Amino acid sequence: MQPRVLVIVGVGLIGGSIGFAVRRNGGMRVLGLDDDAAALLRAKENGIVDEVCTDLGAAAFAADLMLFCTPVDRIADKVLAAAPACRPGTVLSDVGSTKVGILSRLHGRLPSDVQFVGGHPLAGSEKQGSSSADANLFRGRLVILTPTTPETDIGAVTAVSSFWERIGARVLRMSPEAHDHAMALTSHLPHLIASALAGLLPPELTSLTANGFRDTTRVASGDPRLWTAILEANRDEILSALSGFEDRVREFRTALETADHDRLQFLLQAGRERRSAIANDT
Amino acid sequence: MQPRVLVIVGVGLIGGSIGFAVRRNGGMRVLGLDDDAAALLRAKENGIVDEVCTDLGAAAFAADLMLFCTPVDRIADKVLAAAPACRPGTVLSDVGSTKVGILSRLHGRLPSDVQFVGGHPLAGSEKQGSSSADANLFRGRLVILTPTTPETDIGAVTAVSSFWERIGARVLRMSPEAHDHAMALTSHLPHLIASALAGLLPPELTSLTANGFRDTTRVASGDPRLWTAILEANRDEILSALSGFEDRVREFRTALETADHDRLQFLLQAGRERRSAIANDT
Repeated sequence: MQPRVLVIVGVGLIGGSIGFAVRRNGGMRVLGLDDDAAALLRAKENGIVDEVCTDLGAAAFAADLMLFCTPVDRIADKVLAAAPACRPGTVLSDVGSTKVGILSRLHGRLPSDVQFVGGHPLAGSEKQGSSSADANLFRGRLVILTPTTPETDIGAVTAVSSFWERIGARVLRMSPEAHDHAMALTSHLPHLIASALAGLLPPELTSLTANGFRDTTRVASGDPRLWTAILEANRDEILSALSGFEDRVREFRTALETADHDRLQFLLQAGRERRSAIANDT
Repeated sequence: MQPRVLVIVGVGLIGGSIGFAVRRNGGMRVLGLDDDAAALLRAKENGIVDEVCTDLGAAAFAADLMLFCTPVDRIADKVLAAAPACRPGTVLSDVGSTKVGILSRLHGRLPSDVQFVGGHPLAGSEKQGSSSADANLFRGRLVILTPTTPETDIGAVTAVSSFWERIGARVLRMSPEAHDHAMALTSHLPHLIASALAGLLPPELTSLTANGFRDTTRVASGDPRLWTAILEANRDEILSALSGFEDRVREFRTALETADHDRLQFLLQAGRERRSAIANDT
């Protein structure tokens, strides 16, 4: 059965894009909440939600499906605050970039008739706020769900999967641990590296950057507050991925220092092969 | 006076795009050379050159302007081989990503009536070959010229500047040393980093990459042979830029390891500020 009332907690870029996509599709009433009253008003003005609400308990009681779209460090608190007010059978999910920490904070603390399914759409932007919301942000994109089987009810997982598929996403299930391990390498480490590189650019060289620098550092424009929370939430996996990266950079350094032409070309070739696999996969 | 015969030595992506742009503009006959006979034939078929030529001396004699668009490690040799066959007043230039090495190899070895002006268009692509050539590749882009004043004739610099401006580029002059110093940070180091990151991706995570990873590693698809030559040609400047990057990454590591929230956010903020300056500059 398709949920009739969707509550979006946090109407930033992701929450806003979900609201847009759902309202365009029709069939659900969209209620928005946000601690930032101005952001909430903008969301209503931008047509991202049908209604705004400032009381989490009232919204939770109205919800068939609640999606938590706040920064990762606030998701568990919001879920714990909302869940007791939910009607039996309400399904809760989130869009947080890390999963293990959130799920371990929720473990054993939710009412037995309310289900939480961890989720993470692999879509986003360095932009922020509902003004940049895009109804097509999730079209063709992957959403990872991390049900902690056998605890997570199959019906709840199906409801969240169907929700994402209706707005054009593909759904993949994996364990929270596998998710956080993968994202450390595919998303969090690249962000750290892009930020480190961007931070090195002296102002006088700004106009000498071309597409290479711009692409390599694009994600560094992301919100520092959001990304501090993400890096902290997945610290151990990121430190481990970072060690692998530092080793690889050291290999490049040694090849350059020792003028090892073949080794340098081999390293560049390895990078190209892995990168080209992505292009073919898309 | 506008040159009438342009000789392009090396009809890959850059040489091919120049040929395309010039032929679209009209006014010059374009002669192409390439050590790769198949590439040369493709360039003719693709309409990138008016004529192909296999004899460097004959082409040099016909040229008013010669542009060397081979990999950086072959430019100086080609220039030295061509220059003695040039008519007095012929202007030579190149598109190499590094300048100091090429200019020092040419220093004092060219006929006195032939002028070489080092050049580097800040445009390119991870794609290769004249099949990917694009007549608009240089439109609005910066071309750096590195005349070694007072040795380089003003007339020659003006001729090369005017040439690039006619196909839509903006021209900036700087010393070869300043050029190589800047490019180490804005182009060569990002390539090395993107390649190191891409090379870490295990095949099973390919499908879990989203735009962030894809953008951050896009340049890693570049030709390893071309990039080995570039990294080698600007080794000292790149090693120095790499040291700065390693220091910055170490700061991120320490902030993560010591759970220094404020420091982590400060580092991310610094990256964002520098990256946003680029966006505003474009």
